[in-house]
Amino acid sequence: MPLDPKEALPAWFLGPRAENADLLERLVVEALRDHVFWRRNYHPEDGFSIREMDKRREGYESSVAVLTQELLGLLAELKRDVPFFSGRYKGHMIAEQTIASQIGYFATMLYNPNNIAAEISPVTTRLELEVAGDLARMIGYPATSWGHLTSGGTVANFEALWLARSVRYLPVAAAGAANDLGLDLEVGLADGSSAPLGGLRLWDLLNIPVEASLDLWERLRRSAGPAEAQRALADHSLATIGYQEYSRRLALDYGDPLPAGVVLVAATAHYSWEKIVRALGIGSNQLVYIPLDTCYRMDPDALWERVSELVRHRQPILACVSVCGTTEESAVDRLDQVLEVRARAARELGATFHLHSDACYGGYAAAMTRTADGKSRPGEAIRRSTGEIWPDDKWIRAIAALGEADSVSIDPHKMGYVPYSAGAILVRDGRTRHLVASEPPYLSPAVNGGQDVEQFLGRYILEGSKPGAAAAAVWLSHKAIPLDERGYGFLIERTMAGSRRLHAALARAKLAPFRLVLLPAPDINIVCYVVTHPSLDTLTSLNALNERIFQELSLARKSGAPEYIVTRTRLRSPMYDGAIVPLLDELGVPVAEWKASGPEGLVVLRSTVMDPFLDSPAPGPDHVAGYVAALGRACTAALG
Amino acid sequence: MPLDPKEALPAWFLGPRAENADLLERLVVEALRDHVFWRRNYHPEDGFSIREMDKRREGYESSVAVLTQELLGLLAELKRDVPFFSGRYKGHMIAEQTIASQIGYFATMLYNPNNIAAEISPVTTRLELEVAGDLARMIGYPATSWGHLTSGGTVANFEALWLARSVRYLPVAAAGAANDLGLDLEVGLADGSSAPLGGLRLWDLLNIPVEASLDLWERLRRSAGPAEAQRALADHSLATIGYQEYSRRLALDYGDPLPAGVVLVAATAHYSWEKIVRALGIGSNQLVYIPLDTCYRMDPDALWERVSELVRHRQPILACVSVCGTTEESAVDRLDQVLEVRARAARELGATFHLHSDACYGGYAAAMTRTADGKSRPGEAIRRSTGEIWPDDKWIRAIAALGEADSVSIDPHKMGYVPYSAGAILVRDGRTRHLVASEPPYLSPAVNGGQDVEQFLGRYILEGSKPGAAAAAVWLSHKAIPLDERGYGFLIERTMAGSRRLHAALARAKLAPFRLVLLPAPDINIVCYVVTHPSLDTLTSLNALNERIFQELSLARKSGAPEYIVTRTRLRSPMYDGAIVPLLDELGVPVAEWKASGPEGLVVLRSTVMDPFLDSPAPGPDHVAGYVAALGRACTAALG
Repeated sequence: MPLDPKEALPAWFLGPRAENADLLERLVVEALRDHVFWRRNYHPEDGFSIREMDKRREGYESSVAVLTQELLGLLAELKRDVPFFSGRYKGHMIAEQTIASQIGYFATMLYNPNNIAAEISPVTTRLELEVAGDLARMIGYPATSWGHLTSGGTVANFEALWLARSVRYLPVAAAGAANDLGLDLEVGLADGSSAPLGGLRLWDLLNIPVEASLDLWERLRRSAGPAEAQRALADHSLATIGYQEYSRRLALDYGDPLPAGVVLVAATAHYSWEKIVRALGIGSNQLVYIPLDTCYRMDPDALWERVSELVRHRQPILACVSVCGTTEESAVDRLDQVLEVRARAARELGATFHLHSDACYGGYAAAMTRTADGKSRPGEAIRRSTGEIWPDDKWIRAIAALGEADSVSIDPHKMGYVPYSAGAILVRDGRTRHLVASEPPYLSPAVNGGQDVEQFLGRYILEGSKPGAAAAAVWLSHKAIPLDERGYGFLIERTMAGSRRLHAALARAKLAPFRLVLLPAPDINIVCYVVTHPSLDTLTSLNALNERIFQELSLARKSGAPEYIVTRTRLRSPMYDGAIVPLLDELGVPVAEWKASGPEGLVVLRSTVMDPFLDSPAPGPDHVAGYVAALGRACTAALG
Repeated sequence: MPLDPKEALPAWFLGPRAENADLLERLVVEALRDHVFWRRNYHPEDGFSIREMDKRREGYESSVAVLTQELLGLLAELKRDVPFFSGRYKGHMIAEQTIASQIGYFATMLYNPNNIAAEISPVTTRLELEVAGDLARMIGYPATSWGHLTSGGTVANFEALWLARSVRYLPVAAAGAANDLGLDLEVGLADGSSAPLGGLRLWDLLNIPVEASLDLWERLRRSAGPAEAQRALADHSLATIGYQEYSRRLALDYGDPLPAGVVLVAATAHYSWEKIVRALGIGSNQLVYIPLDTCYRMDPDALWERVSELVRHRQPILACVSVCGTTEESAVDRLDQVLEVRARAARELGATFHLHSDACYGGYAAAMTRTADGKSRPGEAIRRSTGEIWPDDKWIRAIAALGEADSVSIDPHKMGYVPYSAGAILVRDGRTRHLVASEPPYLSPAVNGGQDVEQFLGRYILEGSKPGAAAAAVWLSHKAIPLDERGYGFLIERTMAGSRRLHAALARAKLAPFRLVLLPAPDINIVCYVVTHPSLDTLTSLNALNERIFQELSLARKSGAPEYIVTRTRLRSPMYDGAIVPLLDELGVPVAEWKASGPEGLVVLRSTVMDPFLDSPAPGPDHVAGYVAALGRACTAALG
């Protein structure tokens, strides 16, 4: 029977007051006993390793006493943890988890499968690939895509760039390999034409479209045989010879001292991109921030200008990272327009690059754009459901464009509402994975009879041992709450509605003499604003006030528990140059003062709304009104 | 009261027949209800978001029905999972988990803290640092060391090499920075002398000992001020400028086209080291495998020769990776001798390198070498407890040497018997972490009042969001089962005794016409052997037999469930050249035939013994006798 999401939503979570405690306890005990009786029934003739008499000895009792005592201590300590479950938590991108994911994790953890390979996770490796398929369908990827779970967004993004670099440099290696093997191969170019590989300049080789690169790889394997092709490619691959030798060879082979390859990122990109390019050896100087528009989205015109300029200087572009749901503002880049810029660069400049969408935060919002039968849901239908003018068609086009990105990272442990740790990386052309494959000696693909090499994830990914329980948690959550209008789509729509209600309430809040200056209404569900007061005449004093308000509304509060919990961030120059001027104008802060503030930046209060009950409180608590009132008191306390 | 480990051991696990089911269920229900009542008591005036009436609607019922049905399906599916808990599982390095870690994980997962920063994990970030401290004390690290948990061994090892590279190249950046700032600084050299930084050649800069590099970093910060020093260093750091520019500058600044830096690894090193050097941009060609001795340990003489040769060719050595508990054989490298080689290289050749111990598998064995009060436990005391001639003093010296390595990786999710995922990386000189630190805008160190920047792990590590539940699981397990002779030391001693009993039983097994050829008695607890038969006259046929025996003793078995479950690996040339000759001789396989076999190698059956009950079966099942008998039947079936 089709679920009515309004009626179903109350069943999805344990609940802010643990309203579904009986349900969760029943499932937990069921899962535990079910596991216990598996052990009991496994070769019952084996007898017992631990006898009842062993359980009556002093050492046993003493060990149980220590464990129980320490557990009670831990449980007491955990009461100092953050009440993410409560409507009073309006801070980071974390809330409570779905019951499905909690029970899925717990039940599977008792078995502790390791998804490095199906030999030690015959069930959950399959579930992990199913989960990747769920996410791929949600964003409109073809069946030839591929993906898997990671420990989180940083590793997912790391892999995306690692894979992107492997594909981008593949034609260079293929040209060397084909030359060694005496092969003459054709390759597709960015402008749509094709040419013999042997005659291409280094610049051309670094601007082969992703699909054409992988086609070339297949052509090479067919011509030379897989093993021979692999050996020849290895002689010329960055992965094998390393950057130092690679740079030397390029100079030698092509007499072409090209500048280092760059990575374009939206200026809102998560700070981990800097870690990633540092670790990969690309270097943080090669991270080029693309300015924002006033909606805090990557500015497509600025992107085009930057791409043209780089091409003029013959600086290769490894990848461009667009963001779907920025971690500070939940802004959704106009990925459709970014794709147009790439298409134009290919057409007009003969240059191209890998396009990655960092949808770690926002990816699950794509569930709003799917109907129960997996089709695209028209904008009018979505707006009929929200009863509002949002989301507009531009937003929907931006989300639909995810299906055209070369890779997308999506974190189930963010808007998938599952416990840590579960990130995911998807690549549109699944062949990409073979470029980073390795062959461990003890985990052979021949394992488990008919099981396929594809079930041996350790070959293709950065990590090794990984929890099958995480895969089962996401899998069960997707089963209980489908990735479409009936499930996650509805859930995220509710949080968007709540965040817009909060945004509107803050916009009209009367907290005089304080004044609230807000960022634009969020693309998804993060509300940001700054509190100001007539007595404040410098950026530093403004920041100090907002920092003190944050302290009042956080667990760091000096005098007793906070009424509500928020967080804050800093908008810094030059990243926010394109977006922040209207905000500074309203605050009366000179742009020059802000630019000169360096890492200090502008302190902005930030509330992520993952609470699906915020929009329709009655008869529950109204945490919008409560929040605004508490903010007023916090302002007064902070100034005093 | 002090625990008697013999009496306590039966309380540590759920048990092969779920003998402790009542204990685990009691703790699970306690933890769940304790959490539930936290939610109930948090601002009780807030009322309810989910009402009893909501739980009686059709959509709610339907959602619960879907969840329950899918969960039952998952539980049924999980019965196809691997029975790691049973004494019949003798395969990979996985067994059941401690009750303490299971309940610690579950209890904390309900709170879902994120150990990226204390703001969203005020309790578990502290527990994570305590866990790192536990492990550091166990291996004899000083209080100035530092460490944290990772998603697993691959990320831990990745970070080790990332940190090692940062330290190794630091003096080059410092020389550039000091020059820019007009500073003249002294720096310690490998031979114990010191010299002005400005006058050093590139080769000398790349051979500064770890501690001297970090002292130099501090001196630079003191002389120029931290911010200025940071800026100046960034202008010359590989992390900032990237490999391509870095290589160009070295050639320009020093006119010194040094070959690429290499990473020395024991030939038994885990395959993930290849992934790691590929991803870091070092290149797998720079991975130099050091030959083994006949105990499958890195050969110190071969290491010395290789180091001397590299120094002669002025090829810088980034790091040397020694293994404590190889993943195939559980061999423990003579790290004490590796340290002597490094000391000699510094003394005689003026060259040095970062020394990392990959103790992902074997690290917890160090618990055997600690007394209850944290002191070193003498060899005689350990042998009195094992009642045997093992472990010998050489083994004990090798383990004690962990305290002198620059970094050590240890996986709690291997011999710590905790659920996935929990790896750990420790660095001896905690200052190292500052070299890779980053500054995210929304997770400020000023959070939570007195809380220290050190509680903000996201600054220093590769990953971002990470499960506080994993930290709590390891923490509680260490509390219940101390990291010394009373706890993990005893547990691992029992598995070693079991593996030696199995090794001895296989050595004397009469399975004629089959013959078993064994690897040496394990350094820890992995038993490897090859089955041969008079009719087999090629390596290929020998491998095929062992592969078929493996299939008989695995879940891939075609006709029904296997009696026991083992796994297998492949010993390949050139990695195993130094170790394998006695084995091939006994098998009658010509060394040349094996060398020519490439990736095929020699198939070796492999049984990890993590079962602490294997050595003292009565009155429980005797899984040594059972295993040998089942092996006999599998041999016959495999040949037929």
